[in-house]
Amino acid sequence: MTRDRVPVVVISRMVVYLRVLRDAVTAGKEYISSAELGDMAGVNSAQVRKDLAMFGEFGKQGVGYPVETLAEEIARILGHDTDMPIAVFGVGELGTALSRYLISRSKTLEGFSFTVKALFDSDPAKIGTELGGVVISPVCSLPEVCARENIRIGIIAVPAAAAQEVVDLAVVYGIKGFLNFAPAKLKVPPGVRVVSSDVTMVLQELAFYL
Amino acid sequence: MTRDRVPVVVISRMVVYLRVLRDAVTAGKEYISSAELGDMAGVNSAQVRKDLAMFGEFGKQGVGYPVETLAEEIARILGHDTDMPIAVFGVGELGTALSRYLISRSKTLEGFSFTVKALFDSDPAKIGTELGGVVISPVCSLPEVCARENIRIGIIAVPAAAAQEVVDLAVVYGIKGFLNFAPAKLKVPPGVRVVSSDVTMVLQELAFYL
Repeated sequence: MTRDRVPVVVISRMVVYLRVLRDAVTAGKEYISSAELGDMAGVNSAQVRKDLAMFGEFGKQGVGYPVETLAEEIARILGHDTDMPIAVFGVGELGTALSRYLISRSKTLEGFSFTVKALFDSDPAKIGTELGGVVISPVCSLPEVCARENIRIGIIAVPAAAAQEVVDLAVVYGIKGFLNFAPAKLKVPPGVRVVSSDVTMVLQELAFYL
Repeated sequence: MTRDRVPVVVISRMVVYLRVLRDAVTAGKEYISSAELGDMAGVNSAQVRKDLAMFGEFGKQGVGYPVETLAEEIARILGHDTDMPIAVFGVGELGTALSRYLISRSKTLEGFSFTVKALFDSDPAKIGTELGGVVISPVCSLPEVCARENIRIGIIAVPAAAAQEVVDLAVVYGIKGFLNFAPAKLKVPPGVRVVSSDVTMVLQELAFYL
């Protein structure tokens, strides 16, 4: 099975299952049924079994899934065993909050392989200063920083007008995944993924249903 | 057509169309074709026509859509003409950044009807202080603040362990939509919507495909 064929909704649920399983490990639970796992993840038990069956056979009839082993398997499937260096582009208010949050999480969360390795900003007053131990670099140093730190994911927290330019440059230097917080629709070549997370757009979607 | 029947993906695209149209208004454009609109929104022209047809007839054969009128219509459909008071729960690093961002946006973006009307935190050192002109209140004052400000949407930026409790309380006092930034799966009664936006979970989804 190629990764591209797995629907994003399945991966999104696998991430939730992993979180539930880690909580269960902490609580000292050894086995969990698909019904329990589903209940805590907000889906039904058939969906849990179907999702997990896409990746292998993990449970035992009548016993359930072994909590710790399944957590490790899902972490491996999701690629948590490989390092995922991140660059944050734009260290304004939102970029700073996101960076601090991610830096603190990567230090405290076991099995969390995302590490903020680079911060970029265009403000000369910020360049050279540190945030959580990471130095803020100018965007012109992107080629050398990306090569040195092997950046895999870019978080876009620059103003909308600058977002496409930053992404174009980052794509040239090998970044294949973006989490976009700028209120702009980004264009990327095939094989590059963008997940957008503009708060105001999500609010507008939510408001429609209220 | 009841609002509940409209798929969230359609609404999500309508929000993007609106943004493209507002840019086109600013650029002085009078008419736009479904192909142009689609190109800027990242979808094909057939999808644009199908989405818009769910809500009415807006274009003229051979001329395209009138930019300004269509923008107004979509804003009305999305409910931007009604006020949407927001409360932010948890004024930590992320909550502060989100609040500042939303407060600044609501002042500058024309037609943006989301207003941060209340901020809640449990830290006695923060209660009574102001952020962007909004006073931080203790969660115990939620009933009176929700009633006074007619809060419609809650943004959850509290730690994971506190999130469900805060949401349960907010639901009791009439909040029907939540944007959740806490790394927790929230349970809500029917008729209440939660959109989750936990950065680490989105990163985990993204990483799978890299």
